[in-house]
Amino acid sequence: MRIPESIKKFADIFSELPGIGPRQAVRLAFYLVYKGGGITEEAARAIKNLGEIKICKQCFFISTTEDLLCDICRDKNRNQKVIAVVEKDTDLISLENTGKFNGRYLILGDLRRKGILESDQKLKLQALKDWIKTLPEGSSAGSGQAEEIIIAVNPTSVGNLNATSIAEELKPFTKKITRLGIGIPSGGEIEFADADTLGSALERRG
Amino acid sequence: MRIPESIKKFADIFSELPGIGPRQAVRLAFYLVYKGGGITEEAARAIKNLGEIKICKQCFFISTTEDLLCDICRDKNRNQKVIAVVEKDTDLISLENTGKFNGRYLILGDLRRKGILESDQKLKLQALKDWIKTLPEGSSAGSGQAEEIIIAVNPTSVGNLNATSIAEELKPFTKKITRLGIGIPSGGEIEFADADTLGSALERRG
Repeated sequence: MRIPESIKKFADIFSELPGIGPRQAVRLAFYLVYKGGGITEEAARAIKNLGEIKICKQCFFISTTEDLLCDICRDKNRNQKVIAVVEKDTDLISLENTGKFNGRYLILGDLRRKGILESDQKLKLQALKDWIKTLPEGSSAGSGQAEEIIIAVNPTSVGNLNATSIAEELKPFTKKITRLGIGIPSGGEIEFADADTLGSALERRG
Repeated sequence: MRIPESIKKFADIFSELPGIGPRQAVRLAFYLVYKGGGITEEAARAIKNLGEIKICKQCFFISTTEDLLCDICRDKNRNQKVIAVVEKDTDLISLENTGKFNGRYLILGDLRRKGILESDQKLKLQALKDWIKTLPEGSSAGSGQAEEIIIAVNPTSVGNLNATSIAEELKPFTKKITRLGIGIPSGGEIEFADADTLGSALERRG
């Protein structure tokens, strides 16, 4: 049957977005049409404004300023010699929400193939190494070395493999390499914890 | 942590859409920001164009023309005296895709409460009745009567209850009231069919 061109066009674009399939894209289009009341104008404006957001040249998080640095990389009160390597911007936000990290980040992007980094991820690591080399000599860290790099990727099989190769690459540039602690999630039950998790929780008891 | 206003605004609007929660809305925002390459412009344009789609004044399907009639209601080759009452526009599209229906439709909107129609759904039924009254006297149907009304709502408990009350309302305005046939889905297995479905499939064998 003949579907209006504007609905087809909408469905084409939105079915490409993560978590939205062709069926839901059409459903969304109809929803927006029937909802009315200026919602299409408002949604269009919201999307357009996203286009004005920049990417931080240091950590690749979002930045809204002209100097292309994000709020975290620009913050003089944060210890720039402690760097957390994360996969996604949402991981960064989760870590920030703990209020317990005062370093900077590097957003690598989704790790896909086991232990093999995409070419843009290699470039990002190289940018981090180059940046670390420019670090001033301090009392707590030698010239051109970070104090600590936390490889904050998921403790999954893909994450673990990649973490090893990332650690290998960054080892010459930091005094210490760590990963996030594995243990029973707060509110979780011992009964449902696997042996790996429980073993690690035992080792890290305190 | 401080999230840019434009991402917050996007997430506010898109988390209200069906099937998109607050978490996915933020994920979509980041996806669009990182994707770049004019995708925000393109998506904004696609949504804005949706705002230009009208609603058919007869069946409440989408219409792109100024006379506020959809392609189906305007089509002189279709039997306007056979009317399928559906819940959603996507149901209409599914029926159209069978190529086996040549009447017109009435889109009622989602049936929510058991057996009780929303006030706008009552208005839609009233509009249908008023429209049927204006039908010219024909050989196959008496004055002001439809030939057949198919209550094409889902054969669920909510759908069944509503179908009964809709049928009650429309009975004086049509020669025949029907519902879609219940049976084993094409490609389905008898083993997994419930008793209701299988019983109906037996009755409708042929």
